[in-house]
Amino acid sequence: MEQPTEATRAVLHVLPLVLDLGGTFVFAISGAMVAVRHRLDIFGVLVLAFAAGNAGGITRDLLIGAVPPSAIADLKYSGVSALAGLLTFYWYPVTHRLRRDVQWLDAVGLAFFAVAGAEKALLHGIHPIMAALLGMVTGIGGGMLRDVLVSEIPAVLRADLYALAALAGASVVVSAHLLHLHPMVAALLGGGLCFALRFMAIRYG
Amino acid sequence: MEQPTEATRAVLHVLPLVLDLGGTFVFAISGAMVAVRHRLDIFGVLVLAFAAGNAGGITRDLLIGAVPPSAIADLKYSGVSALAGLLTFYWYPVTHRLRRDVQWLDAVGLAFFAVAGAEKALLHGIHPIMAALLGMVTGIGGGMLRDVLVSEIPAVLRADLYALAALAGASVVVSAHLLHLHPMVAALLGGGLCFALRFMAIRYG
Amino acid sequence: MEQPTEATRAVLHVLPLVLDLGGTFVFAISGAMVAVRHRLDIFGVLVLAFAAGNAGGITRDLLIGAVPPSAIADLKYSGVSALAGLLTFYWYPVTHRLRRDVQWLDAVGLAFFAVAGAEKALLHGIHPIMAALLGMVTGIGGGMLRDVLVSEIPAVLRADLYALAALAGASVVVSAHLLHLHPMVAALLGGGLCFALRFMAIRYG
Repeated sequence: MEQPTEATRAVLHVLPLVLDLGGTFVFAISGAMVAVRHRLDIFGVLVLAFAAGNAGGITRDLLIGAVPPSAIADLKYSGVSALAGLLTFYWYPVTHRLRRDVQWLDAVGLAFFAVAGAEKALLHGIHPIMAALLGMVTGIGGGMLRDVLVSEIPAVLRADLYALAALAGASVVVSAHLLHLHPMVAALLGGGLCFALRFMAIRYG
Repeated sequence: MEQPTEATRAVLHVLPLVLDLGGTFVFAISGAMVAVRHRLDIFGVLVLAFAAGNAGGITRDLLIGAVPPSAIADLKYSGVSALAGLLTFYWYPVTHRLRRDVQWLDAVGLAFFAVAGAEKALLHGIHPIMAALLGMVTGIGGGMLRDVLVSEIPAVLRADLYALAALAGASVVVSAHLLHLHPMVAALLGGGLCFALRFMAIRYG
Repeated sequence: MEQPTEATRAVLHVLPLVLDLGGTFVFAISGAMVAVRHRLDIFGVLVLAFAAGNAGGITRDLLIGAVPPSAIADLKYSGVSALAGLLTFYWYPVTHRLRRDVQWLDAVGLAFFAVAGAEKALLHGIHPIMAALLGMVTGIGGGMLRDVLVSEIPAVLRADLYALAALAGASVVVSAHLLHLHPMVAALLGGGLCFALRFMAIRYG
C-alpha cells in the first residue's frame, strides 16, 4: 500500500478538474447538436450546451454539499461550454458529418464524468456505494436535462448500457480507492471499463 | 402541554426516517411501473425508481439546507429504491395486476411523505407555513420528476385533490406542532387526513 | 468613486427583494395562465404559479449557496405567487384578454429578475462573469420549468432575444458594479436594456 505523496495529492486535485472539463466539452457539444436539430437560435444553443455540459456536475456538487458548484465557482466550465456551443453552431455541417464520431466522444465524456464524479464524492467523504452512484449521476445528468429540455424521454434511460456503463466505471474507481490504488490507476481502470462497455453497446448493440 | 421526554425526542428522529423510507419504497414502485410501461430496460427502471422515490425528499433537503440530503447520506434510501425497482421489473405481471392496489399504496406514500416533509422542515427551523408547503413538495416532487422524465404532464398537477391532500396533511402536522401535540399524534392526524382525501378522490372522484 | 453610505447599503439589500418579488408576481401569472390553458385545476394552477415564479430565484440561491433560498425563508414569495395564481384562475377571462399586456409584464419581470439575480450573486462574492450568467439563469429559470412541466420545449429557448436580453441586462449590472456606480443606477441601466431588447423583439421580431 502506497503512501499518498505530494504528487499523488496534486493528481487527486487536478485529475477531477481535467476529467470534468473534458466531459463538459463533449456533453456541451451533444447539447448544442440537439439544440441545432430543434432549430434553436444561437442563444438557445448556448443555453442547452451549458445545461448538457454542466447539469451532471452541478447536481453532484449540490448533493455532496460542494457549494457553489465548480461550474459556478470556476469560469473554465462556462468557457468550455460556450466554446463547444459556438463551434457546433457555426460549424454545424462539419459537426453533423462527425456525429458518428461524436458518439465515440460521448463515450469518452461519460467515462470522464463517471470517474470525476466518483473521485469528487469520495474526496467529500461520501459513502463508497453512494460515491459510485454519484459518479453515475454525474455521467447521465447532463444528457437527461438536455433531452427533458427538448421534451423527449432521455436517451440515457433507453440506450443500452448507458447508465450501467457509468455505474460500472464509477464502481471500479471506488473499489480501487478502497484498495488504496493510485487515483490515476483508478481513473484508467474505471474510465476504461466505462468506455469499453459503451464501445460494445454502440458497435454491437 | 407536554414536556418533550427522551422518548418523544427519539420518536421525532426515528419517525421521519420510517415515513421517508416507506414513502420512498411506494413511489419507487410507481416510478418503476411507469418505466416498464415505457419499455425501459432494467437500468432505466432503476434510475426512474430512484428518481420517483427520492426527488421529493432530496428537493426538500436541498431547500432547507440539510446537505448532503438523507437520500445521499444514508444508503437505506437507494437500497429501498433498488429493491422496489427490481421487484417491479421482475414481477411486473404481479405488480401490474396489483396496480389498483398501488393506487392505495400511492395514497399511503403521499401521506408518509407529507408528514415526514413537514416534520423535518419544522426540525430545521423553517417557518410553519413554509414547512407545510415543504411537506407538499416532498409528497409531490417524486411523481412530478417521474412524469417529466417520460415526457408527460405530471399526473400530480391534474389528479383531483393530490397536491391539496398533501398540503392539508402537512398543515395538520404543522398545526399539531404549534399546539404542542405529540409528534406521533400529529403524524396520525395529518397522515390520516391526507390519506382520507386521496381515498375519497380515488373512490368517488 | 462613491463611498458606500448607510443609504446605499440599505438599497443594496432592499432592491433585490423588491425586484425579486415583482418578478415572482409576473412569472407566477405566466405560470398560472399556462396551467389554465392546460385545464389544470386550481391546485395545479397554484403549483405551476409557484414553480414559474420561484424556480429562477431558487436555482440561483442554491447555486450561490444562499440556503435556505429566499423563496423558502421568506413567506412573501409564496404569498405573492399564490395571489397571482388565484387572480389568474378566478379572473381568467380578464387575464386572458390582457395576455398581450402580460407579454409586456413578462418583459418587466425578466428585467427585474436579471438585475436581482446579478446583484445577489455579486453580494455573495461570485465572479462577475458568473454573476451575469446567474442573472440570466434567474430570469429564464422559471419560464423553463413552467414549460417543462407542461411537456413543452421552453419558449425561452426559442423566443428571440430572450436569454440574450436577460444576459445583456445582467452584464450591465455587473459592469456598473465594477465601475462602482450606485446599485440603483446599475439596476436602472441593466433593467432598462433588458426591457428594451425584449420590447424590440416583441414589437418587431
